[in-house]
Amino acid sequence: MPSISNKGRHMPASPIRKLVPYAEAAKKRGTHVIHLNIGQPDIKTPKVALDAVRNHNIEVLAYSMTEGSEQYREKIAAYYAKKDIQVSAKEIIVTTGGSEALSFAMGTIMDAEDEIIIPEPFYANYNGFATAAGVNVVPIPSSIETNFALPPIAEFEKLITSKTKAILICNPGNPTGYLYSKEEILQLAEMVKKHNLFLIADEVYREFTYEGRTHYSILQVEGLEEHAIVVDSVSKRYSMCGARIGCLVSKNREVIQTALKFAQARLSPPTFAQIASEAALETPQEYFDAVIEEYVSRRNVLISELQKLEGVKVAVPQGAFYCVVELPVEDADDFAQWLLEDFELDGNTVMVAPAAGFYATPGLGKNQIRIAYVLEKEQLVKAVQILGKALTKYNAR
Amino acid sequence: MPSISNKGRHMPASPIRKLVPYAEAAKKRGTHVIHLNIGQPDIKTPKVALDAVRNHNIEVLAYSMTEGSEQYREKIAAYYAKKDIQVSAKEIIVTTGGSEALSFAMGTIMDAEDEIIIPEPFYANYNGFATAAGVNVVPIPSSIETNFALPPIAEFEKLITSKTKAILICNPGNPTGYLYSKEEILQLAEMVKKHNLFLIADEVYREFTYEGRTHYSILQVEGLEEHAIVVDSVSKRYSMCGARIGCLVSKNREVIQTALKFAQARLSPPTFAQIASEAALETPQEYFDAVIEEYVSRRNVLISELQKLEGVKVAVPQGAFYCVVELPVEDADDFAQWLLEDFELDGNTVMVAPAAGFYATPGLGKNQIRIAYVLEKEQLVKAVQILGKALTKYNAR
Repeated sequence: MPSISNKGRHMPASPIRKLVPYAEAAKKRGTHVIHLNIGQPDIKTPKVALDAVRNHNIEVLAYSMTEGSEQYREKIAAYYAKKDIQVSAKEIIVTTGGSEALSFAMGTIMDAEDEIIIPEPFYANYNGFATAAGVNVVPIPSSIETNFALPPIAEFEKLITSKTKAILICNPGNPTGYLYSKEEILQLAEMVKKHNLFLIADEVYREFTYEGRTHYSILQVEGLEEHAIVVDSVSKRYSMCGARIGCLVSKNREVIQTALKFAQARLSPPTFAQIASEAALETPQEYFDAVIEEYVSRRNVLISELQKLEGVKVAVPQGAFYCVVELPVEDADDFAQWLLEDFELDGNTVMVAPAAGFYATPGLGKNQIRIAYVLEKEQLVKAVQILGKALTKYNAR
Repeated sequence: MPSISNKGRHMPASPIRKLVPYAEAAKKRGTHVIHLNIGQPDIKTPKVALDAVRNHNIEVLAYSMTEGSEQYREKIAAYYAKKDIQVSAKEIIVTTGGSEALSFAMGTIMDAEDEIIIPEPFYANYNGFATAAGVNVVPIPSSIETNFALPPIAEFEKLITSKTKAILICNPGNPTGYLYSKEEILQLAEMVKKHNLFLIADEVYREFTYEGRTHYSILQVEGLEEHAIVVDSVSKRYSMCGARIGCLVSKNREVIQTALKFAQARLSPPTFAQIASEAALETPQEYFDAVIEEYVSRRNVLISELQKLEGVKVAVPQGAFYCVVELPVEDADDFAQWLLEDFELDGNTVMVAPAAGFYATPGLGKNQIRIAYVLEKEQLVKAVQILGKALTKYNAR
């Protein structure tokens, strides 16, 4: 039997994948599982986007343009202009989700054995894309004690080698909910210029910032044009994760021209999803206002409920819709499995994502979980109640 | 300024990309350009597929299953069963186009510097996926003299090294139109078993076989279960290239489990496109009968017209909707550009794909072009007339 690749052997599985059979078994037993583990918003997709697809008049569903239609890219540029980000349509490549944008970015700037520094905890699939590209992830720990703020620049500099090609950040952060300040972004910008590195920012949660904070994009930093690569997506912005449309944005012409060759190999992004995404740009501001208001109140409820639990530490999120929670347990992975296998409260239990999967340094985050607050408030309150009772019982075993 | 990757520098551009500006300039001058260069069918997409999307009742466009919905995969398995290919739903991963299936296949079985042997001329984007994966393509020439039949197994064996991981074929072939016989497939099967290699078959043109010939899939070969990986797509079958849905099929469990990890990193295939693709499976047989009849008559017209031209050699296609044509010119690339820049007949010219881009061996195919017969017959006749006049004028310069 021929053997699979080394990279295939090292491809990480999703951090919650091994819990899935336990969740299924729980459901089979009749236990209702409240899912705190996934970043799939329950928010309705804007009607304007869904209607555009309903009203399509396509007769031949042909390839679209490799880089996305000019009209759509012009509209994306106009969207960025409203966010005070000045880019032109030709600095944008439409991709199949933010995932593909990240994979093009990695391929464009990194070869096998090159290194990318990423503050941890980080979005677990960064590991997958890096492994697929043969690239080594060099993690730099951030701490729940500082809400997962940017680690000191001196700590980054200790990790930079001749193999380092880029720094990757997620802002606001998944799983941390941390929103980097303008000052933090400027510090990163100085560092990447000094060491001649790329700075990749995953800004897919740009809209989700709370308490009047504003998002500062790496594309807004003057003098960073040749270094900055933004990964973006419609998935969370318009609650349309299933569309699979994102984009890669850079003012570095060589980066765009090279990424375009990766894009040409896969021909074009999906047409129906582009129709939906283009229409989604017409979403009225009230939609976002209502969504943000909903997330803020969910966050507030979730945090205040969690803070009532003894021994539980919460990083208060300022953006996105995740938070990392430290639990009074030794192994959150074991606790998460136990929740599904051995616990229920009035027929309910919860599924959480063990945070260790969001760290690259072995042993870090073992007592942490990630919670996605993409559920209604009553569900969140109930989920935290269950967590509280479960912790007591688990620790009394 | 930070530098891009070596692989980025080596990513091949599309073979026709550099002709595009000349085509645009011709159109600006008012010249009508008949496109023989692209594999985008003009055939209408089945109404049942387009209607399914029109009638969607989605409210939250959520992530779908990473491997594609079970229901859709069950239906794909039933489709294969009708083709006398026995696979189960769990041996199928739904992908974003055949492109992604190929890229998962390469990542699953090959590391940087591994080798894959591909009969040339081959679909140019194989180069792109190989370069992106850091994999080396080892071409094995097939010849227009034999209609691009399978090269002798002994020639393959000369190229096998310790780095060789797989053989990749496209059947029926793009750009050759060649349909491998059952005997040729069995020869390949014996060879990959003997040398413990994978055999990847791109079978996206399965339906398009002519003159009563039937397609023989590598999945039909008994004893090849651990070696065979099929790349498939709805793009050509239902004339829905813009959907971007394909699949990876293998009975090798380790391959499927590993490819699934690559799939998990990119979350899910596009939802609307899956709706269309699932519905497309209800397309009545009459649709295919009519389409095949149309392609056969186009092929017949095209071939007989081409054969009237002096000095022109045509590989008669038995499948797909391409043919490779040898022209009485030294450099088909130059001729293709000249057609767009310096020639017109009654306000018309043609755009062809120079075949050199489909070869990996430098110098091969320089006097060949690929023609896609995805146009109506009158257009094909007109295009060949233009080609004929153009050849005379070009060679008389």
